[in-house]
Amino acid sequence: MKLSKKNLDQRLNHVYDVIVVGGGAGGLSAAIYLQRYRLSCLVIEKGRGRSFWMQDLRNYLGLPPDTPGRTLLQQGQQHFLSLNGDYLPGYVEEVRDEGETFAVKVKVGKQESIYPTFRCKYLIAASGLIDNLPQLEDMQNVYDYAGYNLHVCMICDGYEMADKKCGLFVNSEAAIQTAFVLNWFTPYLTVFTQGLCQVSPEMRQKLEEYGFQLVETPIHKFLGHDHEMCGVELTDGSVVELETGLVAMGSHFYNDYLKGLDLEWKAENLVTDSMCRTSHPRVFALGDLKEGINQVSIAVADGTLAATAIWREIRRAAPPRRWEDRLNQPAILS
Amino acid sequence: MKLSKKNLDQRLNHVYDVIVVGGGAGGLSAAIYLQRYRLSCLVIEKGRGRSFWMQDLRNYLGLPPDTPGRTLLQQGQQHFLSLNGDYLPGYVEEVRDEGETFAVKVKVGKQESIYPTFRCKYLIAASGLIDNLPQLEDMQNVYDYAGYNLHVCMICDGYEMADKKCGLFVNSEAAIQTAFVLNWFTPYLTVFTQGLCQVSPEMRQKLEEYGFQLVETPIHKFLGHDHEMCGVELTDGSVVELETGLVAMGSHFYNDYLKGLDLEWKAENLVTDSMCRTSHPRVFALGDLKEGINQVSIAVADGTLAATAIWREIRRAAPPRRWEDRLNQPAILS
Repeated sequence: MKLSKKNLDQRLNHVYDVIVVGGGAGGLSAAIYLQRYRLSCLVIEKGRGRSFWMQDLRNYLGLPPDTPGRTLLQQGQQHFLSLNGDYLPGYVEEVRDEGETFAVKVKVGKQESIYPTFRCKYLIAASGLIDNLPQLEDMQNVYDYAGYNLHVCMICDGYEMADKKCGLFVNSEAAIQTAFVLNWFTPYLTVFTQGLCQVSPEMRQKLEEYGFQLVETPIHKFLGHDHEMCGVELTDGSVVELETGLVAMGSHFYNDYLKGLDLEWKAENLVTDSMCRTSHPRVFALGDLKEGINQVSIAVADGTLAATAIWREIRRAAPPRRWEDRLNQPAILS
Repeated sequence: MKLSKKNLDQRLNHVYDVIVVGGGAGGLSAAIYLQRYRLSCLVIEKGRGRSFWMQDLRNYLGLPPDTPGRTLLQQGQQHFLSLNGDYLPGYVEEVRDEGETFAVKVKVGKQESIYPTFRCKYLIAASGLIDNLPQLEDMQNVYDYAGYNLHVCMICDGYEMADKKCGLFVNSEAAIQTAFVLNWFTPYLTVFTQGLCQVSPEMRQKLEEYGFQLVETPIHKFLGHDHEMCGVELTDGSVVELETGLVAMGSHFYNDYLKGLDLEWKAENLVTDSMCRTSHPRVFALGDLKEGINQVSIAVADGTLAATAIWREIRRAAPPRRWEDRLNQPAILS
């Protein structure tokens, strides 16, 4: 059931089989599988994750390519609740390993917050990441286009940028390398650093060789209307016309709550095995939190894998269920 | 575009980047990604695969749990065709490794068949498997219930069998072990061997301990109506009442066309790396053909992985696309 400040005290004495941190594609997939494996599961979702912002899910099998990410999430949440799972809007602040269980401390409510602690045997970390965006004075101007024709994922949306005049928005020299991959989709590239990084002479020369323009002046605002970005105005008043754009400014990972656990990391990604198990035998990590490709389809499959691994372990440790009641046995009728 | 006997000769001189054998969940996912990576792709689908038979896709995120498998396939096919992919109904008879390319011989048309050969640089094997079903005199009687409440996958449908009187239909002693896993979902189990295998004294004793009934008499027919199986009638005329059933009689893999290639197998499954690449660097295998869990979500993610690996390789080998036409450069306007 849907939990809130009003009813969550009903669950404070319950030990869940699994708490899933994050109700995005990976977390909801895991949660649906877990309930169908007859395990008890709580999903804690802070809201407004990466898939919430997707305007079109263009490469997830089974949904029309103009399906917004939030439709996927709504459908998944409804599916999970129909299986009697528990769902709590809240922000996980801390996870403490208590040996047999984890204690998961959650901030519930933005105003007059309360801080309940829930307990579980297994933890699934599916809290994902959010893409860094250009920081302009008027952030609404950025949100007007991000997720529309100002993209954040080349694998998802390279196709949409094909042969268009494209701005690549970066904040490091390493990210400028993206231009030479994006080049597969379009050669009409302008790289915007906003002066946030130094650009080496070698890189300048390589950009020149490809015919890519480099703009280091900060951006004043994106131009366009109806979520269709058509260029940028720089702080010096000049304008660069564009038809599309890709932001490659890194990401913020939602993984602070995991930092107190003894887990193996590779930079900001969790190291996992083929079933998404981290170096802690009862902690799993899905989707963007772990190494690999950041795609909805991958996160959904990760949910399947983690839920199945947990089910197998709990099932194998469970006592057999015997058909005790012989009266109910399906007698062979003549 | 959709290919048929009438128009396929237009493609006989084309070398596809990828031919995908199988238009199920894995193949279509790969194909959609490939087209969006701007690669040329042909999907060859023999029809009526495992997902075509699924009456409800109960654990695939984003679709209501009563969505039939064929809806997923139709949506995927339409999506792929909208991206200008080629789709051919046909049966792949043989694949020959020609060094730089593969020659893929296809049987097209059940009557007056023709046998064209298509060529590609990479091959994706996504032809899956089909579950063996009890072989009764009247197979329509089996098809009336298979995929409804006579299930073939415990991971998918264990939940649907929970605490119900369940028949487990097997053809080997090894498959009887399934009873002690299915036991997680229900203890009310009757195992039907139809006399197709010997049952050891140890197994008989274990079944007895769990209170599971063993029926070795062959089945005459399934009983029920409106796709709702409610028992079986044995050849001796006796009747066993059931509320649901699971068939665990192994599978037939559609992989004959791969047997001429030099690939590493583990029994009937192809061995693959983390990107679904087989031991042949230009052959990938997805979903049920490879080792792992047979689930739609896994096959869909496999399609993402294989398509991405192929794209990376082709992209890295491609010459740079330069912004040659300086006149088109987005001049900074004042």
